[in-house]
Amino acid sequence: MKKLTSWLDIPADSDFSIHNLPFGIFSKKKKGKTRAGIAIGNQIVDLAALAEAELIDVSPFVFRQSTLNDFIALGKKVTNKVRLDVQRLLVEADSPLQKKQEILILQADVQMHLPIHIGDYTDFYSSIEHATNVGKMFRDPENALLPNWKHIPVGYHGRASSIVVSGTPIRRPKGQVMPKDATAPVFKPSERLDFELEMGFITGKNTQLGDSVSTTDAADYIFGLVLFNDWSARDIQKWEYVPLGPFLGKSFGSSMSPWIVTLEALEPFKVAGPKQDPKVLPYLKYTGKNNYDIQLEVALQPENSVAHTVSNSNLKYMYWNMRQQLAHHTINGCNINVGDVMASGTISGKDESSYGSMLEISWGGSKPVTLKDGSTRTFIEDNDTVIMRGFAEKDGIKVGFGEVSGTILPSD
Amino acid sequence: MKKLTSWLDIPADSDFSIHNLPFGIFSKKKKGKTRAGIAIGNQIVDLAALAEAELIDVSPFVFRQSTLNDFIALGKKVTNKVRLDVQRLLVEADSPLQKKQEILILQADVQMHLPIHIGDYTDFYSSIEHATNVGKMFRDPENALLPNWKHIPVGYHGRASSIVVSGTPIRRPKGQVMPKDATAPVFKPSERLDFELEMGFITGKNTQLGDSVSTTDAADYIFGLVLFNDWSARDIQKWEYVPLGPFLGKSFGSSMSPWIVTLEALEPFKVAGPKQDPKVLPYLKYTGKNNYDIQLEVALQPENSVAHTVSNSNLKYMYWNMRQQLAHHTINGCNINVGDVMASGTISGKDESSYGSMLEISWGGSKPVTLKDGSTRTFIEDNDTVIMRGFAEKDGIKVGFGEVSGTILPSD
Repeated sequence: MKKLTSWLDIPADSDFSIHNLPFGIFSKKKKGKTRAGIAIGNQIVDLAALAEAELIDVSPFVFRQSTLNDFIALGKKVTNKVRLDVQRLLVEADSPLQKKQEILILQADVQMHLPIHIGDYTDFYSSIEHATNVGKMFRDPENALLPNWKHIPVGYHGRASSIVVSGTPIRRPKGQVMPKDATAPVFKPSERLDFELEMGFITGKNTQLGDSVSTTDAADYIFGLVLFNDWSARDIQKWEYVPLGPFLGKSFGSSMSPWIVTLEALEPFKVAGPKQDPKVLPYLKYTGKNNYDIQLEVALQPENSVAHTVSNSNLKYMYWNMRQQLAHHTINGCNINVGDVMASGTISGKDESSYGSMLEISWGGSKPVTLKDGSTRTFIEDNDTVIMRGFAEKDGIKVGFGEVSGTILPSD
Repeated sequence: MKKLTSWLDIPADSDFSIHNLPFGIFSKKKKGKTRAGIAIGNQIVDLAALAEAELIDVSPFVFRQSTLNDFIALGKKVTNKVRLDVQRLLVEADSPLQKKQEILILQADVQMHLPIHIGDYTDFYSSIEHATNVGKMFRDPENALLPNWKHIPVGYHGRASSIVVSGTPIRRPKGQVMPKDATAPVFKPSERLDFELEMGFITGKNTQLGDSVSTTDAADYIFGLVLFNDWSARDIQKWEYVPLGPFLGKSFGSSMSPWIVTLEALEPFKVAGPKQDPKVLPYLKYTGKNNYDIQLEVALQPENSVAHTVSNSNLKYMYWNMRQQLAHHTINGCNINVGDVMASGTISGKDESSYGSMLEISWGGSKPVTLKDGSTRTFIEDNDTVIMRGFAEKDGIKVGFGEVSGTILPSD
């Protein structure tokens, strides 16, 4: 890929390079109305203003909303053109945008919002390393992976209402937990509060009830990706999850990054996924490279202290890719809508340093982690902030996600 | 309760008596625009027209929409007043409505729509008879009820996008199933397609993330109830559901009745629920009678044949009541929005004739049911229609739900 250069001053290491151009919803800190924008370096291209100036061929109305749903629903032909038009406007010498720099807004001056109205949220469980680690701890170390795992991209429905944008504090949940050797559950704040390092994709096209999306067509239905922290209360989850799956152990909050990086921006970073053995059923077969080499990092920052990196992982480890997830999700005729979120499940690698949850990092609480400030953690403490970052980089071109962060408030 | 009489001709056995007055969304069969209405006998009070005629004190705009969400969001003070105003207009001699009968529309002349935009859908598992039956068949007959069941109103997140209004056909889903004694799954249309007799409640008030709703306050957050058929593909479900719960075995479709019967209309039919032993944790305690005596019936009708009743059950059998379900759902801070659906789970009674699914009625397929036309069923066949009905009746006063029906189309 040819590296492009903008007339705009973009920091060399910026996640939001001229090759990225992700979409989000922002409001100016004092004026307040939400609008759609594209991130570039430390700034934002105000798409409503750009449309009003007639530098892109879309009604400004679609950008003066509280979510991107209506814009995304215009289809990839339109959304890709807007992105490429903005890229051209930022690259061309004597670009009309260069003369109208009031269309560019400093990121420091805005507040970011949840970029989409989320219809349904699905969480997959697609990392073989994570599923194996959890299986060892929660079930049988000798048969950690359940019989269906290599045949099905296992997933479950999550709670859409409690998905919040990066920066939103999360209150430590209370709930029922069953203490070891007890005969009855007790009610208390979770003592095993965890993050889950995930990425999510946002669907960009509706289907009708009864329709399926093939692995071949799946990319047409994926608008873009975000970082996703699926906060988990392990003690609540453990007591509740048999037989119908996780519920209150997850539904108290999930956090996502504000900028949706398009699938098109990630195209150069495709890599082959792990070999799938046994062979998958025909509807899950795919051709080509469909994993993405996206470097991921989780840092834990205690209150008034420094951040400590607890995990370095990569989306490329996923056993099941997004095309397979979407094909599986719809094979029974389940319909999808623009703005559904489908998250990967915890992204763990083979190595301990790449585990994507405290459950795995501290091995069920048995191996505390010592942070830079000397304190130790098995799970997340009150007022800790969890920060996840991710980016792809190749041939000097960087496409990043910014971050998703969240601070745990004490239970009330 | 004093029995009221309307000047309007209402069939004596109508579900939609003067004491009911449920809300729904309809459109005239030829003209097409959706509007809110109240069912009365065989007719509908057109609420937009009623508001335009200034017979109720709400903007007509809120009734000229495709869902009831905005109306419900006005709060119970407003929605209850509209319902009671309509009741008064239908009872009073020389009522102004009597002079404007163009506001009344025959139900036979309209199409009904899904009455709400559903944010999130949760399915509980609150019948002890159903949970016991399933546990016996799917797990261990000696320990059918799992250890958490009597402590937690067990529930899971379902798929909101695929909830459809009564009358919408459902295509038989395809998916992975694991044949008995096989070593690998096969892909095929479900052979164990089932209904689940449920009722669902519709939430009528938002909460903020971090808030909880107590059992005492729960009724303020419940707008009303509908009949709900949570279609299930047992063979797909069985292979996929460990460890994260039901997914594609359920998400191909759920059907709900079009008229939302308000909690206020059901007030006279409250009864005490089963004794809960062991005692529940304090946040699940409640006072008063909080079960509802609602008679339920499921009929199965083969193509070009007669309907055969396969189940007679009752909502009063539920072990966990709605107040407890809502208190549990929000105890971890999970927020709710107007238009969430929380379904009961399959409503089975003690007796075989009151089982709420074919799985239980045919005991896992081992006991075929002979229908009126001489054909037999273990599960649902192609082109069968499943019809669920429900009503409460006391002191000559009937409050019913109409029906939820759906026909299974062959897999394509």
